[in-house]
Amino acid sequence: MRKLTKQQVFKDPLYGFIHVDDVLIKKLIDSELFQRLRRIRQLSGVQMVFHGAEHSRFVHSLGVYEIAHRFLTVPDINEALNDREKLLFLAAALLHDIGHGAYSHAFETTFGVNHEKIGAQLILTHPELRRILDTEDDMFAEDIAHILRKEKKFPLIEQLISSQLDVDRLDYLERDAYYTGAAYGHIDVDRLIRVLYIKNGKVVFKLSGIHAIENYLIARYHMYWQVYYHRVARAYEVNLEKIYLRVRDLLKEGYPFENNVDPLKKIMSNPEDLEAYIEIDDFYVNGLIASFKSSSDFILRTLAYDFLNRKIWTSIDVNPDNEHMIKDIEKTYTEEELKYYTSYRTVQNSTYRDDGEGFGDKIYILLENGKISTLKDQSKIIESLMLSGTKTDPKFFYRKR
Amino acid sequence: MRKLTKQQVFKDPLYGFIHVDDVLIKKLIDSELFQRLRRIRQLSGVQMVFHGAEHSRFVHSLGVYEIAHRFLTVPDINEALNDREKLLFLAAALLHDIGHGAYSHAFETTFGVNHEKIGAQLILTHPELRRILDTEDDMFAEDIAHILRKEKKFPLIEQLISSQLDVDRLDYLERDAYYTGAAYGHIDVDRLIRVLYIKNGKVVFKLSGIHAIENYLIARYHMYWQVYYHRVARAYEVNLEKIYLRVRDLLKEGYPFENNVDPLKKIMSNPEDLEAYIEIDDFYVNGLIASFKSSSDFILRTLAYDFLNRKIWTSIDVNPDNEHMIKDIEKTYTEEELKYYTSYRTVQNSTYRDDGEGFGDKIYILLENGKISTLKDQSKIIESLMLSGTKTDPKFFYRKR
Amino acid sequence: MRKLTKQQVFKDPLYGFIHVDDVLIKKLIDSELFQRLRRIRQLSGVQMVFHGAEHSRFVHSLGVYEIAHRFLTVPDINEALNDREKLLFLAAALLHDIGHGAYSHAFETTFGVNHEKIGAQLILTHPELRRILDTEDDMFAEDIAHILRKEKKFPLIEQLISSQLDVDRLDYLERDAYYTGAAYGHIDVDRLIRVLYIKNGKVVFKLSGIHAIENYLIARYHMYWQVYYHRVARAYEVNLEKIYLRVRDLLKEGYPFENNVDPLKKIMSNPEDLEAYIEIDDFYVNGLIASFKSSSDFILRTLAYDFLNRKIWTSIDVNPDNEHMIKDIEKTYTEEELKYYTSYRTVQNSTYRDDGEGFGDKIYILLENGKISTLKDQSKIIESLMLSGTKTDPKFFYRKR
Amino acid sequence: MRKLTKQQVFKDPLYGFIHVDDVLIKKLIDSELFQRLRRIRQLSGVQMVFHGAEHSRFVHSLGVYEIAHRFLTVPDINEALNDREKLLFLAAALLHDIGHGAYSHAFETTFGVNHEKIGAQLILTHPELRRILDTEDDMFAEDIAHILRKEKKFPLIEQLISSQLDVDRLDYLERDAYYTGAAYGHIDVDRLIRVLYIKNGKVVFKLSGIHAIENYLIARYHMYWQVYYHRVARAYEVNLEKIYLRVRDLLKEGYPFENNVDPLKKIMSNPEDLEAYIEIDDFYVNGLIASFKSSSDFILRTLAYDFLNRKIWTSIDVNPDNEHMIKDIEKTYTEEELKYYTSYRTVQNSTYRDDGEGFGDKIYILLENGKISTLKDQSKIIESLMLSGTKTDPKFFYRKR
Repeated sequence: MRKLTKQQVFKDPLYGFIHVDDVLIKKLIDSELFQRLRRIRQLSGVQMVFHGAEHSRFVHSLGVYEIAHRFLTVPDINEALNDREKLLFLAAALLHDIGHGAYSHAFETTFGVNHEKIGAQLILTHPELRRILDTEDDMFAEDIAHILRKEKKFPLIEQLISSQLDVDRLDYLERDAYYTGAAYGHIDVDRLIRVLYIKNGKVVFKLSGIHAIENYLIARYHMYWQVYYHRVARAYEVNLEKIYLRVRDLLKEGYPFENNVDPLKKIMSNPEDLEAYIEIDDFYVNGLIASFKSSSDFILRTLAYDFLNRKIWTSIDVNPDNEHMIKDIEKTYTEEELKYYTSYRTVQNSTYRDDGEGFGDKIYILLENGKISTLKDQSKIIESLMLSGTKTDPKFFYRKR
Repeated sequence: MRKLTKQQVFKDPLYGFIHVDDVLIKKLIDSELFQRLRRIRQLSGVQMVFHGAEHSRFVHSLGVYEIAHRFLTVPDINEALNDREKLLFLAAALLHDIGHGAYSHAFETTFGVNHEKIGAQLILTHPELRRILDTEDDMFAEDIAHILRKEKKFPLIEQLISSQLDVDRLDYLERDAYYTGAAYGHIDVDRLIRVLYIKNGKVVFKLSGIHAIENYLIARYHMYWQVYYHRVARAYEVNLEKIYLRVRDLLKEGYPFENNVDPLKKIMSNPEDLEAYIEIDDFYVNGLIASFKSSSDFILRTLAYDFLNRKIWTSIDVNPDNEHMIKDIEKTYTEEELKYYTSYRTVQNSTYRDDGEGFGDKIYILLENGKISTLKDQSKIIESLMLSGTKTDPKFFYRKR
Repeated sequence: MRKLTKQQVFKDPLYGFIHVDDVLIKKLIDSELFQRLRRIRQLSGVQMVFHGAEHSRFVHSLGVYEIAHRFLTVPDINEALNDREKLLFLAAALLHDIGHGAYSHAFETTFGVNHEKIGAQLILTHPELRRILDTEDDMFAEDIAHILRKEKKFPLIEQLISSQLDVDRLDYLERDAYYTGAAYGHIDVDRLIRVLYIKNGKVVFKLSGIHAIENYLIARYHMYWQVYYHRVARAYEVNLEKIYLRVRDLLKEGYPFENNVDPLKKIMSNPEDLEAYIEIDDFYVNGLIASFKSSSDFILRTLAYDFLNRKIWTSIDVNPDNEHMIKDIEKTYTEEELKYYTSYRTVQNSTYRDDGEGFGDKIYILLENGKISTLKDQSKIIESLMLSGTKTDPKFFYRKR
Repeated sequence: MRKLTKQQVFKDPLYGFIHVDDVLIKKLIDSELFQRLRRIRQLSGVQMVFHGAEHSRFVHSLGVYEIAHRFLTVPDINEALNDREKLLFLAAALLHDIGHGAYSHAFETTFGVNHEKIGAQLILTHPELRRILDTEDDMFAEDIAHILRKEKKFPLIEQLISSQLDVDRLDYLERDAYYTGAAYGHIDVDRLIRVLYIKNGKVVFKLSGIHAIENYLIARYHMYWQVYYHRVARAYEVNLEKIYLRVRDLLKEGYPFENNVDPLKKIMSNPEDLEAYIEIDDFYVNGLIASFKSSSDFILRTLAYDFLNRKIWTSIDVNPDNEHMIKDIEKTYTEEELKYYTSYRTVQNSTYRDDGEGFGDKIYILLENGKISTLKDQSKIIESLMLSGTKTDPKFFYRKR
């Protein structure tokens, strides 16, 4: 737990500065695996609608770390965690996305990997990372992995890293709002921090801060439906999935790719080949897609063309009214085209759920009399929003001829 | 000059919206060549210091267009330009960076091309772009090329596109400040627009707006020295130049690259091979550099390693005090290492110069009595800043062993 | 409808500039009655909690005008209103609060006047104002009065000036958020303007803008409960009401005030004495309260002391649990003290109501098929919020001994 | 030096929150004299041009305190000051403007008082304030007075409170920019704090922060010339001075004022009558001016009319060209009118001066080799600005007939 002789800062457009006090954190930021996050964008399809949002997982990860750093100023957290746990919290916040690859969502669907699992494995086994973490103590890497896997060894830190209101979400909502220019994502983090307490190992928020929580949940709701689930962003994501799908199928068939597709081959034969996995960043995948423009495979060439030139696929709401129209469209495609040029995709999101069993699933409210209640019971506005249930948006996407 | 049936907008984090009224502009934005700018970052080395600045030339180009769109609300500009010239102005603003490639500065130094010349050629000859522009009239593409080449056919538009205070700079200073988080780049564009007049075909600013101009020039000065010329950004740029240099030398030697280096080869044999040139975007170059990590060429592998893992080279101010130290460092390198691992680089910048002969080199001030003066003669603050002359910063960069 | 030879602007911290094109608007702004609004603060008790919010009705009125000015850029509004109606709209927006006096809410409760009625009367009869308005045409003043009284002569303008989503609210929510520093009041006015249409004389919003409306209503909800209805603000308002009450009672008794209380006397005998009414601005009332510090009347002196030195009264929620406690407190006061040192006050607010009969009470949504629906039917989030009904907060305030 | 059991915060539009940790600071804020600052506006004439700037000295004083609070996080300051000195610093920052009265500048000119001297006297003798300060120790009040009088007992604190770059200026430049909407006043306080060190008891700034200092000085320069010295603001100030002048002259003549002018009388006979002085806040003076509208004295009535209705006086630059014109105007006035309706007024300001003898007059720069240099010697930009010397703007103001 060595401290830097002088606090180091990185200029950040949202928070002014990212503040680093610990030698460990500095070394983690400088590590190859963390620098690799500069080569993985935070939002894939979204930037096709909101052109300003070209930021990477690197800046988001620094942001999550900074929010965690601020959380340590909360008296109850400062008291609840010992020095080692504080550093665990900071390191886990910094590394929470370390397992992400290029266009993860589409990639994972197609190649059957999971960035969270991979993240924990990298922390445990990547030589440079492990060496850095071992300078703290032998269990440090294991304990970060415990936290990211939510194995309840450090339940408080797990709540702070991943729950309905955690350091990850606080950063990405604010940051994505900043870069997209969306008017909706602003959250009063300072206020939330000021009303945060720990009671019986649980994160609770004072009743007087309930408006800040309501506001956060509604901002989240709006960001999902206005930004993350924007029709164009989703269409672009479908385009990307189809590229991955075609590549996978061609690899299976033994198609002679002109460029280096070794990392993908290795992942296909062994989804736990970490060395191959970390090769697959945006630089690699984008370079590959760029080369597909002149591929001899017609389908791959077509998909790459759409991707590179923002030829957005069309979408239709899936509902009884449109059923017939969708069927008619489908009829115009061959079976192979159906596979690669059309897709049913559904997104859904609730403002707030309260039905989980484990911790982290409810937001707890600390009443003035010291008792603990839940957000649902204290906020009329949230209670009524919960009545509106989960909003679902099924769509049919297809490549226009 | 067809108008869209309804104005189209794109959400922008700086200006709220980018406003598009013209069918032509819409088509240009949707064109492959313009979408390609999404794959070319605005700032190369700078993001290694200011992590937030990961934006592309695409968003900058939209921004320059939007500023031009606002300039058209200036009564004098509205009057001075006919409808065709207005559209020329907007299109030229949008396309002013269309000739940029990946990491242009380093690339151009090494491969002897020029993005401005290429931009004009692309406008004249790229099939899709030309087809779109020709829908206006046969001379439209030529006239945009005239403007970008500053051939004085449309002197007023040229001033607005490229001078000491133009739509390009207004966007990039504001935008780079927004994304880096720098406190210095904010410019009062609204005020500048309100005091802008045209007299005898010249852009002039009313005396009452002189503070906004002073402020703009000083913001520019600070952005250069605090952001663009930051030691780390420059060191990173040197790293990149050396990669290009090594690739070029290896290509000359006939080194057997494993990846597709055809576009580079073509550019080397013919710097005007536009088709090859437009292949060379960030996707392509980044993919290449990623592959160099496992190159059999030691130097290339080393340079790529530094680039990918943010191993920033060291720098020393070149001045009499340090001369000896630099010589000593140089002695430790072989001749080949000197070539690829060290570099002398100088940057310089003035707050404002007033010594050019052509138009566009002075900022003119409109006095209350209707006479035209110059910024230098009206602003004591700028006059004294000009006395301080051009600031120069020569540095020696080297890869630490 | 004369235009200024050059658009005039006023620097505004929210909108950059307030833009004035019309000679009439310029003259109205320069008029004595409008300048008087500089001497009437927008928020009375609120600034005792949110110290930044010291702004006047003058800046708010300019802001409402500016929003109206922007509304005129909406194609449908531009088309629906002729030139005279546009100017009526702008003038009505500017003058909508012209009848406000010092600490209106408390004043009106005590002295039985109504600022809206008075506003319309001032527009009709104040010599300077009437003279300015008459330069347009003989009916201009009457027509503004019609609009402010909502007499349905200009139903569209009335909707824009005063409805569930009008130029007045758009400015005050944004402005009060800016000055208080509240994180909640931000509204996407640009977006709202872009989705606003007129159908059958009704203001409607395109379905695609529904998130901006949801966001606006929730921002409004939060501003009410977090800012306007803050316990301390309400306590301060009660203090103020008691001062007015004591002054009124003393005036009735013929108490020999040392300062000039003529305007108050006149209003008491004739609530329609406009000349007296316009004397009663913050300068006058504050001067009076300052003088009460040394009044010979103990109660008045006490109340003024609390007011001037931020001695905030205590409050208790009125509910069955607290009934007994409140009764006990009341018992400790004499009858006179009960009157001047205690108060029951209830505030209530709904996120959105939809049950009015007249126009202006619903927010209408324009569907993609051209049909008109209502916000309630289109927004699940608002529908559920309406279920939560009207939130009510009854409190008992008292001066601690 | 008792701490509050929980840090208390006040919402601030600039800094998010004002943070209070000390019982003493809390009590000082709640004191009558400090609450009185709510009744004294920060800027007098300026709000006649920049309507948004209606804030009080209360919010500015809280802001200065907050900046001081942040300065305590600077390692060198934290080390250089013991606990008592830290509290002295915070209290002095909070109270630095406690001696201000209504429209101080004009008032002091006319009635021969000095708000700084009065401030120190109030700290020493005002019963409530003294009682609060004495709870710390017997010397606490005296020591704050020492600091505000710059008597070099606490030279470091004095520098931080009042020098070329102090907590007072940092707040007012930022705050006035925020409320006016001026684009120029933004200062990178976070950066300045990070490069601030103490060497040999002197405040020094690291060379790497020199751009932030340059930027601060230029922001200051622009705020002075664009905002504080705006022609209209100065004209309004002249109007106000003439009102004070007329009141003073009438008091000398024994004119029978209808309203309470006792505090002014007392100040005239004894400029050190603190009890009278603290009566003279904006509430009092504004109430008085409002009553002058119906004064039987023609001049006073006229001056009050102009003041209340924003009848801005005309101004002419005093220079050889205009000399004749000014003389001609003067001839049209009687001697009495000359006295009350015309005025010569000169303002002047330098970007930066370096010629003082005492400490606090230079900004010191800490070089990388540990030596201390001066801003002038290290900043080419500031050196050249100093060459441009002091800018002076003499004007002749007069009431148009």
